[in-house]
Amino acid sequence: MRIVLDAMGTDRAPRAEVAGAIEALADLESDIEIALVGDREVIEAELDRHGSVPERLTVHHAPDRVTSEDSPASVIRRKPDSSIVVGLKLQKQGEADAFVSAGSTGAVMATSLFTLRPLAGVDRPAIGATLPTAAEPCLLVDAGANVDCKPQHLVQFAHLGNSYAKDMMGCESPRIGLLNIGEEQEKGDELTLETHRLLMEEEGLNFIGNVEGRDIIRARCDVVVCDGFVGNVTLKFYESIASFIIQLLNAELDAVTETDLDLESVFRALDYAETGGAPLLGVGGVSIICHGESTPKAIRNALKVAARAVRSNMVEHSARELAAMKESQ
Amino acid sequence: MRIVLDAMGTDRAPRAEVAGAIEALADLESDIEIALVGDREVIEAELDRHGSVPERLTVHHAPDRVTSEDSPASVIRRKPDSSIVVGLKLQKQGEADAFVSAGSTGAVMATSLFTLRPLAGVDRPAIGATLPTAAEPCLLVDAGANVDCKPQHLVQFAHLGNSYAKDMMGCESPRIGLLNIGEEQEKGDELTLETHRLLMEEEGLNFIGNVEGRDIIRARCDVVVCDGFVGNVTLKFYESIASFIIQLLNAELDAVTETDLDLESVFRALDYAETGGAPLLGVGGVSIICHGESTPKAIRNALKVAARAVRSNMVEHSARELAAMKESQ
Repeated sequence: MRIVLDAMGTDRAPRAEVAGAIEALADLESDIEIALVGDREVIEAELDRHGSVPERLTVHHAPDRVTSEDSPASVIRRKPDSSIVVGLKLQKQGEADAFVSAGSTGAVMATSLFTLRPLAGVDRPAIGATLPTAAEPCLLVDAGANVDCKPQHLVQFAHLGNSYAKDMMGCESPRIGLLNIGEEQEKGDELTLETHRLLMEEEGLNFIGNVEGRDIIRARCDVVVCDGFVGNVTLKFYESIASFIIQLLNAELDAVTETDLDLESVFRALDYAETGGAPLLGVGGVSIICHGESTPKAIRNALKVAARAVRSNMVEHSARELAAMKESQ
Repeated sequence: MRIVLDAMGTDRAPRAEVAGAIEALADLESDIEIALVGDREVIEAELDRHGSVPERLTVHHAPDRVTSEDSPASVIRRKPDSSIVVGLKLQKQGEADAFVSAGSTGAVMATSLFTLRPLAGVDRPAIGATLPTAAEPCLLVDAGANVDCKPQHLVQFAHLGNSYAKDMMGCESPRIGLLNIGEEQEKGDELTLETHRLLMEEEGLNFIGNVEGRDIIRARCDVVVCDGFVGNVTLKFYESIASFIIQLLNAELDAVTETDLDLESVFRALDYAETGGAPLLGVGGVSIICHGESTPKAIRNALKVAARAVRSNMVEHSARELAAMKESQ
């Protein structure tokens, strides 16, 4: 298996990427290779800092880099030599099995759509973000790829999440919840009212009904379905909470005790980096999107997510579930 | 000033209401009376448990009670003797200045609309929820009254929030943010794109542009504007976080230290009860909605919010701001 890692994605690339790749290789099975894609000179200089470099880590040159100035949709045309375009094309051409990037989310999404293509039955691929909860993690679909969704899009998100949770989260029969403003069937806006009706009729889903904002952290479901606007606000709100709490607590602990508490294990449960990147679900390949601020640990975990997705045949399973859904309609 | 408190609202009414009212009177100015509305016998039995009852606490009989089974819109017709309808009518008739209830949010909202009427220029009154942040609290409008909003509704929410933040939160020139999936003006769904355009043109508002989910807790603005669907999901998500954190921390602290940390001051910042109830903004009176699980502390704080709203002429100021807005269009 060969995973392509965009080496030019994070705010301080390629430092986090190189360190994360080296860490990941120490854990991953020996048949897995990682190809760092980006400016060869810059990457090799960073590799030199690490002394001995694992054999399974290679460099694939891509001289150009996508910036936040680039319009996501135009990257494929205007920056064909960028690490994002070159990296995804390697997968398209069968020279790699997965792609991981902490670069511009919009550019990774648009270029993934263009090169890997949506699966049959998928109108709009969606981002799945894994949120830590009080119990097992919860997959939020869509975490931001699509605003202004229609009910049938949310039904597709439910199936994409269902398939992902089975393969990647060890759920035999994932509990699917629809994010809404009340539990009762008659609650919601136009979108969720109609989506609820469709999901009730849908076969092959363990749809548990509406869930509220508070149910996410209480782990009432394994997959929570919503449009990308609500999902993105929720995800970013969630991410911001952890750092707020740590700040509050440190101030308080300093004041009342000299005990030097190691809060790491407490906050691991809240730490977004623990879950690695967020997959783009519904395309014909593996594309994992990471935060621009990713640490080496986050990159390492995203690479592991990519490896697991390839190993579990996630894409094939999704394709099969969506095809079955399409036939039944 | 006379504040009407629905004594039959919380899950364990009238216990929390009676205790909260007695606590509030100890703090409130001596010209403020509280009228407990509900089943006289039940309330008086509860008052007896408290021994001496302040003179400024009276009981107004309302034999009926709204339950979660009642359709909110029909309460005014079908339950005219309920504590919610009787309580709000007292304000309508000029016998009271404010209404506080922890009963069915939908019923309080619908009955407030019917009795107190929307202010001129307000198509849809909205719920304002005060969220604790890393610095000063942030007002979220709309926290759940309206799904499927139009851009002009969100502009009205911005003005209602602006007026409230000036009177009630001590902001001279409240920073108004539009909750969105990115900071850039071109980000968003159809609703937020158009709302952003309108807010840029709006006079008398300190509109700071789009804010993201993470900006709420970072206190980037004083008022965050969104439709009631997104607002409700965000609010409930926020509320659930505090109890999750406390649970995580207690487990960890037990394990590593015998120090009995008083975490109360840490979590005060996260404690929804500290902020009391959420006002229904845009109606011709003061109506404060509390959580069904409100503690006496939450009731006490909601009564204080009500008193401050009356004292600051919040309704008059809102009416003036909305009328000016209407004229300019």
